[in-house]
This record gives sequence, C-alpha cells and structure tokens, in this order.
Amino acid sequence: MDYEFLIKDINLNRSQKKIGTDKGLAKIGDGIVNLTYSIAKSVFLTKNSSNEKIVRTGVKVNKKILANALKNANMKNFAKTRADAHDLADTTEALVAYVWLSNHISLYELIDFLSSSLSGDLTLRNEEIESATEAFTNLLNYIKQFLPES
Amino acid sequence: MDYEFLIKDINLNRSQKKIGTDKGLAKIGDGIVNLTYSIAKSVFLTKNSSNEKIVRTGVKVNKKILANALKNANMKNFAKTRADAHDLADTTEALVAYVWLSNHISLYELIDFLSSSLSGDLTLRNEEIESATEAFTNLLNYIKQFLPES
Repeated sequence: MDYEFLIKDINLNRSQKKIGTDKGLAKIGDGIVNLTYSIAKSVFLTKNSSNEKIVRTGVKVNKKILANALKNANMKNFAKTRADAHDLADTTEALVAYVWLSNHISLYELIDFLSSSLSGDLTLRNEEIESATEAFTNLLNYIKQFLPES
Repeated sequence: MDYEFLIKDINLNRSQKKIGTDKGLAKIGDGIVNLTYSIAKSVFLTKNSSNEKIVRTGVKVNKKILANALKNANMKNFAKTRADAHDLADTTEALVAYVWLSNHISLYELIDFLSSSLSGDLTLRNEEIESATEAFTNLLNYIKQFLPES
C-alpha cells in the first residue's frame, strides 16, 4: 500500500516550512520516531550484548534530542520562526514522516540507519543522549536530499 | 532487514503466555499499535471526508480498547492470570509486536487491516471507541493463526 495521498495537499505547493511546520505530520512522525528508535536501540543493545542477551525495549525519544539534531543538521529553516525546543522537535518528526509517506525511506531503512549510527554505552543516560542526537543528526542529513531546497 | 533475532529467545520455547506477557514485546507493540492506528485513522478520515480534506493525525490508543479487543477475540489465555485492563492491553501489544517481528504481517498490512475495519463517525468519542475496539478484535482474530495454540 501507499499512503502518499496523505501528503497530496502539501505536495501541491511544497516548501520547507510547509512540511516542517505541519502539525499532523509531526504527530505521525512522533510515532515513527519512537518506534524506529525503540527497535534500533533493541537491535544495538542485542548486537552489542556481552552475554548474548536479547533486549527488547520501548523508548519515547526526548524532544531535546530531536531539537538538537535539527540544529546540528543546519535544518532550522524548516521550522517556524522563533521556534522553541518543542517546535524544533516537531519539525524533525514532521520531516521524518514526510519522507516515509513519500516512500523515500522505509521503516526498515530508518531502523537500520539509526541502529548503525548508535554507539557507546546506551544504558548511561548521558551517553544515550549524545549517541541518539548524533544518530538523528545523521538521519536528517541523509533525508535532506528528499526535501525541497527552499 | 529482518528483526526476527529479537525474538529468538521466545521462539526457543514459545508459548501463549511467554509471548503475551513479555514486557519488552509490549513496549515495542505499543509503538506499533499507536503508529498503525494513527495512520489507519488518517486514511479512514481522508477517504471518508465529505470535502476531500486530507487528515493527518496521531493517536495514543486507549488501553481499554486493547483490553476489550483481547477479551472479544477470546485471547485472554495469552495474558497473565488475574490480569487487569492494563495487563490485557499489554498482551494485545505484545502479540502485535510478535507477529510483526516474525514477519507474518507488515506495517502496511496492519494499517490496511485496521483502516478497512474502521467505520462510523470517528470524531465522536464513543463511536471511535466502539469502532477501534472492533478493528483490533478483527486484527487479533486474524493474527491468531500465527500464534501458538497453547
């Protein structure tokens, strides 16, 4: 199936701000980000387990991580003017939803992209924040090619 | 990609309770359920819009809906004994995660299954609860074939 019809209105006259400030896209993206990061973290922890323990976990990705990733990828142009951290995180989520709904990236690719960008000891809060921020920064830099230039 | 290695331990000695009471599976399933229902609801509302309005929305599926769906599908055997509504909902989520991680159903199939089971006026809270309960009941009845018989 194909859900591109859910972004038909946005594509009629697409722009960075139209995609990045869409509240519905951000809501869908919130679900995509949390699910793909949860599985990416489970994959990473399982592959790097010292005792072959399988880890399954679910995580709500912190808004600050998503906001900082947007800044690090130099993609604040997609957010509304005078955006706070919450707005910037919403923009990251909207962009992820947009490229997924556009069929430019699959859920599996998102998970593989994130899990292969993770590093360090994710059981330590500070290391996870740093590692997750880098993973989402890499992801945003990658999906930039599928987004409008202005 | 394939994440079946994330359920290797469960499959070594799989049983209804082992799958249905796994907390990690429930966490992953929570993300799958919320994302797939959000897109299914967006698809349903967009296809049934009277003025061709495109709707994008994100929803956290109520635990009672998931608990009642498990009861309606006669699948309480998968839950722990003396389970409350929250436990039953976790079981529904764990089962969905299990069949997805087993590659028995794709995210697209989950979304299509749910959206085609929805009906009524979802903007009315009571109608949405009734319709979503039926959709998840149908889904559980469908995925039963991929789950152990005891």
